[in-house]
Amino acid sequence: MQPDEAKPRLAALGFSPEHVDVLGDHFLDAERRGRLGHGLSRIEWLETWEEIDTAAVPARVVNEPGYERWDGNGALGYLTLSAAIQAQIASPPEHARVVVCVRTFPTGALGYWVRMLADAGLVGVLTATSPRRLASPDGGPKLAGTNPLSIGIPSSDGAPLVSDVSMGAITHGDVIAGRARAEDLVPFGGPLAHKSFALAVGLHTLVDALLPVDGFGAVLIVARPESDPVPALRELAGDVRLPGSPGRR
Amino acid sequence: MQPDEAKPRLAALGFSPEHVDVLGDHFLDAERRGRLGHGLSRIEWLETWEEIDTAAVPARVVNEPGYERWDGNGALGYLTLSAAIQAQIASPPEHARVVVCVRTFPTGALGYWVRMLADAGLVGVLTATSPRRLASPDGGPKLAGTNPLSIGIPSSDGAPLVSDVSMGAITHGDVIAGRARAEDLVPFGGPLAHKSFALAVGLHTLVDALLPVDGFGAVLIVARPESDPVPALRELAGDVRLPGSPGRR
Repeated sequence: MQPDEAKPRLAALGFSPEHVDVLGDHFLDAERRGRLGHGLSRIEWLETWEEIDTAAVPARVVNEPGYERWDGNGALGYLTLSAAIQAQIASPPEHARVVVCVRTFPTGALGYWVRMLADAGLVGVLTATSPRRLASPDGGPKLAGTNPLSIGIPSSDGAPLVSDVSMGAITHGDVIAGRARAEDLVPFGGPLAHKSFALAVGLHTLVDALLPVDGFGAVLIVARPESDPVPALRELAGDVRLPGSPGRR
Repeated sequence: MQPDEAKPRLAALGFSPEHVDVLGDHFLDAERRGRLGHGLSRIEWLETWEEIDTAAVPARVVNEPGYERWDGNGALGYLTLSAAIQAQIASPPEHARVVVCVRTFPTGALGYWVRMLADAGLVGVLTATSPRRLASPDGGPKLAGTNPLSIGIPSSDGAPLVSDVSMGAITHGDVIAGRARAEDLVPFGGPLAHKSFALAVGLHTLVDALLPVDGFGAVLIVARPESDPVPALRELAGDVRLPGSPGRR
């Protein structure tokens, strides 16, 4: 698929122009960043779904100063995250807020969403669940999704720090796109893979514990920064690439 | 050092009986769990400090429904975390709360603190900064602490899930205790160590961005659970050990 086909094909699936933009912009950004498993291949994947409720609209169902809960209401998770993120930018917390997104799947490249917050001057931490595809390094059944943890920190130099790490040695998107085998989807770390497995199980159970109903979901922490640590870190790093930054070597 | 020496030696350093209990209970728990780098060796380490302000008492300096800020005020970080955790248990959030701990170091085995929350029925996520000891897998200066991420989830079966993962292949405590060499303190993951490095940098910068003053600190998210996912996960896991649980094989 060529980039200029992305939005027309999303429109052909029945999405509103606004949702075509949200979805298309996410997939095109992932493609540009080389995160092909979250890119245009996902449009072909959506085209294989038997049914997509393209009219569904996510809603904020709890709205307190330090806590919000959103419900996907049958919409694609991308759309729920986008709506929740835009609401944070429109009305940032005084200090910090926890945002729980119920029935929210799939969620895409989480770094994309926290980068949006960081570009608006807000700190973001985001994780989300996905089907259980990681087993313990000791064997046994698959117990956790690849469950990325993504952290975005705004910077006065205009280049936020964005760390976006999944707990799998490869991504499920790589499997979908035919670039990796399903059996290579194990917790990363080799002899220390019990560490990434523990993170995946911890993040999965964290999200599950904050959801009032079964299903996949996301948990976002959004905060106003109290200081501006990225420029000094970038100075310290010198030629070493920081997460989410273009290479400088 | 024998376990029964722990509290007398802490008292001899000048700590109040209440603080002796907080510190001693943490070190003894770490020792029992085999986390020797966070155990009794730390009392010997404290005895080498030139000065410890044993009279310092941490204080809550911002207190809102969804956000608290604590300041160590020169007290050991263990005491600040303990005071913040006890305050959460005494007055849990309606839904969720972000707790930032300023001038809070050292913080010990983070799993100990989230387990305390989980035993009181609360979800906890905790990270903390420490001296920058991890360099990028690409080389260069040390850019991040080992910065553990710890997640505790209460369970109706009485055995919380506690995931506590540092981003180092070994712990600095292992180095202090002479069980590992300082040069082995690298991000874990071998060929995928850029992942744990990105997590360590992300967590470090997250904490730094939420601190209004320089120094080490901790960020805690505490929440009331909306559901009880651990028993079903334990059932699914069967004989496979879950993080923070005793082995069952």
